[in-house]
Amino acid sequence: MNRYFQRNKTFRKQQQKQYRTNPSMYVGSADTGKGAIRIVPLGGTGDVTKNMFAYEYRYDGKIRDILLVDCGIGFPDPDMYGVDLVIPDVRYLMNKKEMLRGLICTHGHDDHIGAIPYIYLKLGKIPMWGTPLTAAFTNLKLKEAKIKEKMKPVSFETQVQAGPFRVSFVRMTHSIPDTANLIIETPIGIFYHGSDFKFDFNPLDGKLSELGKINAVGKQGLMCLLTDCLGSERAGFTPSEQKIGDVLEKELSMCPGKFLFTTQSSNISRIQLAIEIALRGGRQIAFIGRSVTKNVEAALDLGYMRFPKDKVVRDRDLRKVPAVKQFLIVAGAQGQPESALVRIANDNHTFVSLKSGDTVFFSADPIPGNENAVNDLIDQIYRTGARASYTNIMEDLHVSGHGSQGDHMLLLSALGPSYVFPIGGTSRHIMNYRTVASQIGFPKDNVMMPEEGEILEFRKFQKPRVVETISLENVLIDGLGIGDVGAVVLHDRQTIAQEGIVVVVVPIERRSGRVIGEPDVISRGFVYIKESGALLEKAKRVVVDCLKTKKNRIRDWRYIRELVEDNLQRFLKKETGRQPLIVPVVLEV
Amino acid sequence: MNRYFQRNKTFRKQQQKQYRTNPSMYVGSADTGKGAIRIVPLGGTGDVTKNMFAYEYRYDGKIRDILLVDCGIGFPDPDMYGVDLVIPDVRYLMNKKEMLRGLICTHGHDDHIGAIPYIYLKLGKIPMWGTPLTAAFTNLKLKEAKIKEKMKPVSFETQVQAGPFRVSFVRMTHSIPDTANLIIETPIGIFYHGSDFKFDFNPLDGKLSELGKINAVGKQGLMCLLTDCLGSERAGFTPSEQKIGDVLEKELSMCPGKFLFTTQSSNISRIQLAIEIALRGGRQIAFIGRSVTKNVEAALDLGYMRFPKDKVVRDRDLRKVPAVKQFLIVAGAQGQPESALVRIANDNHTFVSLKSGDTVFFSADPIPGNENAVNDLIDQIYRTGARASYTNIMEDLHVSGHGSQGDHMLLLSALGPSYVFPIGGTSRHIMNYRTVASQIGFPKDNVMMPEEGEILEFRKFQKPRVVETISLENVLIDGLGIGDVGAVVLHDRQTIAQEGIVVVVVPIERRSGRVIGEPDVISRGFVYIKESGALLEKAKRVVVDCLKTKKNRIRDWRYIRELVEDNLQRFLKKETGRQPLIVPVVLEV
Repeated sequence: MNRYFQRNKTFRKQQQKQYRTNPSMYVGSADTGKGAIRIVPLGGTGDVTKNMFAYEYRYDGKIRDILLVDCGIGFPDPDMYGVDLVIPDVRYLMNKKEMLRGLICTHGHDDHIGAIPYIYLKLGKIPMWGTPLTAAFTNLKLKEAKIKEKMKPVSFETQVQAGPFRVSFVRMTHSIPDTANLIIETPIGIFYHGSDFKFDFNPLDGKLSELGKINAVGKQGLMCLLTDCLGSERAGFTPSEQKIGDVLEKELSMCPGKFLFTTQSSNISRIQLAIEIALRGGRQIAFIGRSVTKNVEAALDLGYMRFPKDKVVRDRDLRKVPAVKQFLIVAGAQGQPESALVRIANDNHTFVSLKSGDTVFFSADPIPGNENAVNDLIDQIYRTGARASYTNIMEDLHVSGHGSQGDHMLLLSALGPSYVFPIGGTSRHIMNYRTVASQIGFPKDNVMMPEEGEILEFRKFQKPRVVETISLENVLIDGLGIGDVGAVVLHDRQTIAQEGIVVVVVPIERRSGRVIGEPDVISRGFVYIKESGALLEKAKRVVVDCLKTKKNRIRDWRYIRELVEDNLQRFLKKETGRQPLIVPVVLEV
Repeated sequence: MNRYFQRNKTFRKQQQKQYRTNPSMYVGSADTGKGAIRIVPLGGTGDVTKNMFAYEYRYDGKIRDILLVDCGIGFPDPDMYGVDLVIPDVRYLMNKKEMLRGLICTHGHDDHIGAIPYIYLKLGKIPMWGTPLTAAFTNLKLKEAKIKEKMKPVSFETQVQAGPFRVSFVRMTHSIPDTANLIIETPIGIFYHGSDFKFDFNPLDGKLSELGKINAVGKQGLMCLLTDCLGSERAGFTPSEQKIGDVLEKELSMCPGKFLFTTQSSNISRIQLAIEIALRGGRQIAFIGRSVTKNVEAALDLGYMRFPKDKVVRDRDLRKVPAVKQFLIVAGAQGQPESALVRIANDNHTFVSLKSGDTVFFSADPIPGNENAVNDLIDQIYRTGARASYTNIMEDLHVSGHGSQGDHMLLLSALGPSYVFPIGGTSRHIMNYRTVASQIGFPKDNVMMPEEGEILEFRKFQKPRVVETISLENVLIDGLGIGDVGAVVLHDRQTIAQEGIVVVVVPIERRSGRVIGEPDVISRGFVYIKESGALLEKAKRVVVDCLKTKKNRIRDWRYIRELVEDNLQRFLKKETGRQPLIVPVVLEV
C-alpha cells in the first residue's frame, strides 16, 4: 500500500508543479476551479464492445470542446431478435455538434471503428484520425457506405491537436497491427486512453509496445488511466502470438489434404505468419471470403503483409492444385451464417469442398454468445469427414489480444495515475481489475466504476465524481434501418418468438357502428393451425361472446380492443398455458 | 493394431464356442440366420441429451420384443423460440406397443429420465426399472405429473429379465450416485449399454465402478459397446470429484460473509461433500430453491445423504443467523431465469440478498448454449458487491461427470467388443472417439456411426448394417402443449422474431365478392409504428393498387392472398431491407 501511496503523492506534487510552471495550454486552464473534463461513455458502461467515448472540456460550466475516441459496433444480445448490429447512442452529442473537434480511433477492430458509417454523417463531418492501418480499414468502410470523407492516417510520432486536446499515439501490441493507446493532454491534466492492448514481448510484426512513452507520461503525472480490463480474470501475462506458429507448423505437417486456416479477418499479422508457414510447407495460398480478401489487400497496399504473388491461387483455379498443396485462408471463424467457411462445411461453396484428409484450423475462440454457431460449424466439418483443430482438443491455437493480470500490473505501475477507470469489460472484469490493482497497492477507492449512463467529471486536485446521468439506448441496426427497431418492436418480437401471435379482426359497419359478420382469428407461431381448428373456433366464440355484452353502437374502439384482448388472453392461457401477443383489429367497412 | 486384432479374434472364437455350447436363451436364438437385434436411437443420433434407445429383437423378419433404455429430455436449440423442452420422438413405437417389454433407466439425470412423464402413458404402462436413486428421482417426476405407476428400484446385484433381454446393472461413477451401465444379453449376443460414466477411483460415496463385472463380460465376448463419447476431446483421465473439496475449503475459509454454493441439483454426492465442509467450517446449512430441496429430501430418505438436522436452517429463519455462519445450497447454477440464484442476484428473493463479503461458488460449468445466461448471472452478482468463484478465474471448481480419452481406452480395452457405437455426443465427439479407439488398435471400420434416423441391425457373425431409416422429429414442449409446436409454427416464430409480422386485412363483401373499404395493414415487431406511419400508408397503397388489377368479382381467394403477399413483400424488402412474415386475411362481411 505504502509504496503506491508514496509514488502517488510524488506524482501529485509533480503535477502541481507542472501546473505552476506551465500555466496554460489553453485559455482558462490556469483557472483551477473553473476547468473540468467530463468523460461520457456513449457506448455504455460495462460493455465489452461498442466502444465510444466523449472527452468533454468545460470551462466555467460551459462546454467548450469535445473529442471523440472510437466509434465501434456491438453485437446484439441473443434476445435482440433479428438485430444485426448495435451501435452507440449519440443523442447526447446532437445539440453539441459545434463543439466537436474530431474523432480518433485507437485501432482497426470493428468494435472500435465499425459504427462510423452509421454515425459519422450525423456528427457533421468532423475530422478523423487514426494510425495507418486503422485509417485504411476505416476508409474501406466509409467507401462501402459511399461516404466521401476519409480518416487521416497519422504516424506514431505525430501529435494531433484537436481543440484543447493534444493527443499522442502510443504503439501497443494487440491482435491487429498499428494498435494505439492515446495520451490525451487536457487543460486540467493528462488522461491515458488504454483501450485494447497486451504486452507481447515478441510480436509477429516485430514492433514492441512503446514502454518508453508510457514511462515518460507516468513521470509527468497522470490524472486518469482508462484501461482495457477484459483479461483481468487471467493470472500472469497473456502469451505472445508467436506461440501459434509451432502448433500450426505441426498440424500442417500432418495434414494429407487441404489445409484451411481461419481466424479473425482483421488479424493481419497472424495471417502473415500462417502464410509464411504455409510457404515453408510448400503449399500455395488462396484467400476465401470477402472480409479476408479485402483486409489482406488493404494490408498489402500499406506494406503490412509480404508474400510472393505467384504463390497465390484464385479460388476458381484451386481445382488445378492438388489438395495437399493447398493452404486456404478462410473467413468465418465465428460461424457467421453467410461466411465462406460455413458454406464450405455445408458443401455449398462453388470452389471449395471438404473431405477426409482435410483439416480446418480454428485460430480463434468463439466470441461469447457465439458458442453455438461455432459448435455447429465444427460438427458440420466432422460430418464431411474432415478434421477440425479447435481449442477444446488442442492448446495454443489462439491467444488473446487482451492483457492478463500481469500486463495490467505492468501498465498501472508504469503509469501511476491518480485514478483508474476500467473500460471494455463487464462488471466481473471491472471488479477483478480492482482486485488486481489493489494487490499492487493501488487504492481501491480510486478505481472509478460509474454505472450505466453516469458521466464522470474530473477537476484539478479533486476526486472525480458523477455529475450527470444520461439515458443510453441500444441503437439497433436491422437491415437498412438504423434505430427504427426500438424497445417496443423488440419486445413484440420477443413475445411473438416465445409464444406466437393471435390476430383478431372484428368487422364493424362504419355507418351503424355495429359488429357485422363473424370475427376472424388468425394465429402464427402459436399452435399448429391444422390440428388446432377446434381451439381457434372456441377462441372465436370467446370473442363473439365478449362483444355481445356490448350491445349498443360501438363508440370506444379502444375499449373494444381491450375487452377482446383480455378475454382472449385469459382463455388461451387456460387452454394452452401460453400467452401469445394478441392484436385486435377493428376493421371499418 | 495386431494386439487388438488378436484379442478380437479370440473373442470371436469364444463367442462362437459359447453359442455352440449354450444354444439358446430364447426360442429361435439357435437359428443363426433368423435372429436379429436392431438398435433404434429414438432420441436422435449424434445428440448429447434426449437419450432414448429401443433394442428390438426380431426373429425371421418379425419384431418379437422391444426393450427401451432411458427416456430423457433435451434442451431446445437457441432458435427453437419459446420451446421449454425437447423430448424423443416415439412415433416409431406406436404400432409396436404389444412388443414393449419394459423401460430401464441408467441414472437419474433429466436427459435420461426427464421425458418419462410426457411419454410414459403413450407407451401403455410398461414396467420400468432403475437403480434406487434413479427410481426415486423418476418417481418424484411421475408423482408430480399425477401418474400412478412407479419405477421399480432394483439393486446392482439384481438381473432384470424383460422378454428375451437379460439385463445386469454395472455400477459406474458419474456425477450422480447409483449410475449404471447395462449388460444386455440378447439371443444374438451381448450388448453393453455404456451411457454416461467416468472412472473415478476415489468417488465421494466410496462406491467404485464395477471393473470386475466389466472384465467378466469382456471375457464372455461382446457384440457391441454403446458408449458415452462426450469427453473424447480431452486427453488423460477425468479427475475425481474429490478435487473440488480442496478449493471449496479454501474459498470458504476466506469468506467473511454468506457462502452460496451452487451445482447441478441432482449431484447429491457433491452437495453432501459441500455440507461436510460447511459443517467443519462451523456454518449452518440452508437449502434454497425447489429442485435442490426436493432432491435432497429424496436422497435423505434413501440414506444417500447424511447430516445433522439441527444444522439446517429454514430460509425464513436465516435472518437470525449471522452471515458468516451461513452456507446456502442454492439452485440455479445454469442461470435459469426462474431459479433461486437468479432471483437472489437480482435482489428479488424474499429471504436472501447479496452484499459485499458474500461469495457465490459455481461448482458447475455452463451447459453449451447457456453461456450467456450464466455470464449475465455472474455479472449481476458482481454488481451486488459480492464475489463469484467460477471456472474462468479458478480451476477445480467443477469436474466433468464424463470420461476422457483415458477412461474410454480403459473401458474399450476391458470389454473388447466386436463393434462400438458411440452415443451421447455430437459428430465431433464421435469422430474423436474413433481416433482414440484406433490409437489403441481398435479397427476404425468397426466404429459404427449411423446417421440421424438410421437403424443398425446386428446378426450373429455378421457386420452390423443400416437396414432402415426412420424420420425423427423434435417433439417440442411449450407450456401445456406436447408436440403441438411443430416445424411450421417454429418457422413462423423464427421469421417473425427476425423480421416481424405484417397482417393485411382485405374486407370483401360476401354478396358481391368485391373489395369494400380500405384494407388495413397492421405490423408487430417490424418497424416502430408511430414513426413509420408513412411507410405503412405506402404499404396500404401497394395493396390497394395490386387489388385494382383484379377488377372482377373475386373468386379465388388464394390467388388474392398470393398477390398481396408478393407485392407487399417486394415493396417492404426494397424499403427496409427486411422480409417480415406477411399474413393476408380476406375478411368476408
